[in-house]
Order: sequence, then C-alpha cells, then structure tokens
Amino acid sequence: MAEYSSILLENAVNELSRLPGIGRKTALRLALHLLKEPSSRTELLSRAITEMRSQIMHCSRCNNISDSELCTICSNHKRDENVVCVVEDVRDVMAIERTATYNGLYHVLGGVINPVEGVGPNDLSIGLFVQRLQKEPIKELILALPSTIEGDTTAFYIFKQLPDYSLKVTTIAKGISIGDALEFADEVTLGRSILNRVPYQKNQT
Amino acid sequence: MAEYSSILLENAVNELSRLPGIGRKTALRLALHLLKEPSSRTELLSRAITEMRSQIMHCSRCNNISDSELCTICSNHKRDENVVCVVEDVRDVMAIERTATYNGLYHVLGGVINPVEGVGPNDLSIGLFVQRLQKEPIKELILALPSTIEGDTTAFYIFKQLPDYSLKVTTIAKGISIGDALEFADEVTLGRSILNRVPYQKNQT
Repeated sequence: MAEYSSILLENAVNELSRLPGIGRKTALRLALHLLKEPSSRTELLSRAITEMRSQIMHCSRCNNISDSELCTICSNHKRDENVVCVVEDVRDVMAIERTATYNGLYHVLGGVINPVEGVGPNDLSIGLFVQRLQKEPIKELILALPSTIEGDTTAFYIFKQLPDYSLKVTTIAKGISIGDALEFADEVTLGRSILNRVPYQKNQT
Repeated sequence: MAEYSSILLENAVNELSRLPGIGRKTALRLALHLLKEPSSRTELLSRAITEMRSQIMHCSRCNNISDSELCTICSNHKRDENVVCVVEDVRDVMAIERTATYNGLYHVLGGVINPVEGVGPNDLSIGLFVQRLQKEPIKELILALPSTIEGDTTAFYIFKQLPDYSLKVTTIAKGISIGDALEFADEVTLGRSILNRVPYQKNQT
C-alpha cells in the first residue's frame, strides 16, 4: 500500500514539504490541519500566496518589495535622499526600520555574491545601484551586509564600483551585543571589538 | 511606516502564520522563498491545497481520509474484516501501516474525547463505529488510542458502547521501547511494565 491513503493528501504534502524548513512530517501536520478547518481558510491562504506571487513588484528605485512602482520608503518625501543603506534583502529593511534609528533610503541587493551557490554580481541589483549613484544626490553610503565571507566580498565588490568623487562610505558597527556578557561572545567578535575600540562616551547605550 | 512594505506580502504572511507551528518570522521566510521561486511553484502549491481541501472525502466505512467513497484499506479484499483497530487519526493509520504487522481494518475517530477543548463523543465518528459493530463480522477490536487521560477516557467510552456478545477487545502493549535503556524510561511506564510483565519467550524481539 502507498503511505498515504489519498493522492490529494499526498500532493498537498509533497508541495508543502518543498518549502524551506518544512519536512514531510510537518507538511502532513499542516495538511491535516487545513482539512480540519473550514475550507474558506484554505482558500484565503491559497489566494494570498498566488496574489502575492503574481502581483508583487520590486521598487524601480531601490529593488525593495512593493505594491507599486515606487516603494513606500522611496516615495516618502520625509526620508533623507542623501543617505543610502545597502542591504541583502527585504528582511534587513524591515529589521532596520523596526529600530526607528534610520531615516535614509535603501538599496536591496536581493542576495550576496556567493560563487558556491552560483550567485554572481549580475544576479543582484548592483547595476541598478550604479545607475542610482549617477542620478541621485547620494552623500553617504552605509554597507549593512552580513558579516560573512559572502557579505564582505559583496561589500568590497560594491566599493570597487564606486565613482572617484568623494562619497562617504560606512559599514554598520560590529561588536559585542548590547546587554551581552563578554564571556559568551565568540572570540572573533570580541577580538575585533577590542581592535576597533572607540572613544568612551558618558551616557553611551 | 507599516512593518511590511507590501500589503500583498503582509496578507501572505498573515495567512501562512495561521498554520500551526508557523510564527510570523517563519511565515515571512516562506513568503520570500515563494517570491524567489518561479510563480509556477506557488501555483502548484496553491492548487494542491485547495484541491485537497475541496475534493477529499472520508471513507464511509472507517472515516479514513480517502479519494473515493471507500478508502484503499476498506476496499482491499485481502484485509481481514474480522479485526478492527480504533485509532485517533489518519497519522496513526499511517504509522501502523508502516510497521507492516497489521492486516485488519481501521476505524478513525477523528480525535479523542477532550472536555477542556470541547470535544465530546458526538464530535467523533463513534456513531458510525457503533453502526459498523451491528453490520460487520467483527471478532476482535484493538483500541490503539494514545496513553493520555483523553485517550483512556475515549477507550473506556467506546468499551461501554460495545454490545453484550463476546467480542475480543485488546489494547496495544505499553512498556519500555525496544532498544531503550531502563534508566531512561519514565517511572510510570517502567512501573506499569513491571506490573504487566509477560511470560519470557526465547527469540523475543
């Protein structure tokens, strides 16, 4: 006998288990959950994902996920056009927005250079970014890429694309997490945070 | 600013995060994964779950999930009609089938009696089961319900519904898992496995 008593159930489990981090057991649990709930729930879920997939756009300026040609950040005239923060993907935009400490624009690369997984500069929105550098009044560039070999490679690649005129280029500070005990920090982070020590300020958070 | 730069993305995250065990962070990861893949993948997933939800049936005999009126087990004439194993849900049928040690039929209750969650006998397929007892040549009943208060309550409730004529009623053996060290077994299981000790057999697995 086949493992599933229903081809319909098996198809649903197959498709659900293609999602990242969802194994066949979890997929079966999700499918059985949908079967127990009213069918309207399944329809809402199904419609939400297909509408998202077919209608979503990428901002023509910063490549952020958007419902219109310009995303809500790029079309907000209160944001500072002189600063652009380069990030790997949409989640990073959301993470930085949640901190409420940044009022500039973004540029979403859509990934980082990763030769092992076959991701090269042309797979990212670096071309679009170079165009922006020529057209926009950018004065500071913040490279907020992950602290990995791939992130560092991508940051360096972008740095090499920059024009000669004086543009302030920064990266986000790396060091011990606020509230963390030193003994639990990894050695590389702790070592770097000593090498890159900064002047002491009273009332520093 | 809203947390999501896109209402379409937010809707998809909302619907995905209603699934059990999927929080908002995981839902966002799944939605962004779907956006990176070809749209045909999202359509396949969406179609698989809506077709499953709208077309799936429950076997009219045993309440197992099925693509037709009788499930593949009930319509298989090689299965022993004299033995019926009562289980909580479809996953238990699949688990027992995987052991390849059972050749009888099943009865899928669709849950267990749970007053705290408002699940009473009428929410389960116990009525259908009582009808089967009157019509079918059942000689042995195996109660394979979970070892919980709810499972035991349900087993007792079913036992009280049984007719007077002599029907062999068994439950699955409970004790130390095969391959487990005694010291790691919980006290209740170990205590019960001593009280319910069985005659020693050579070559016992």
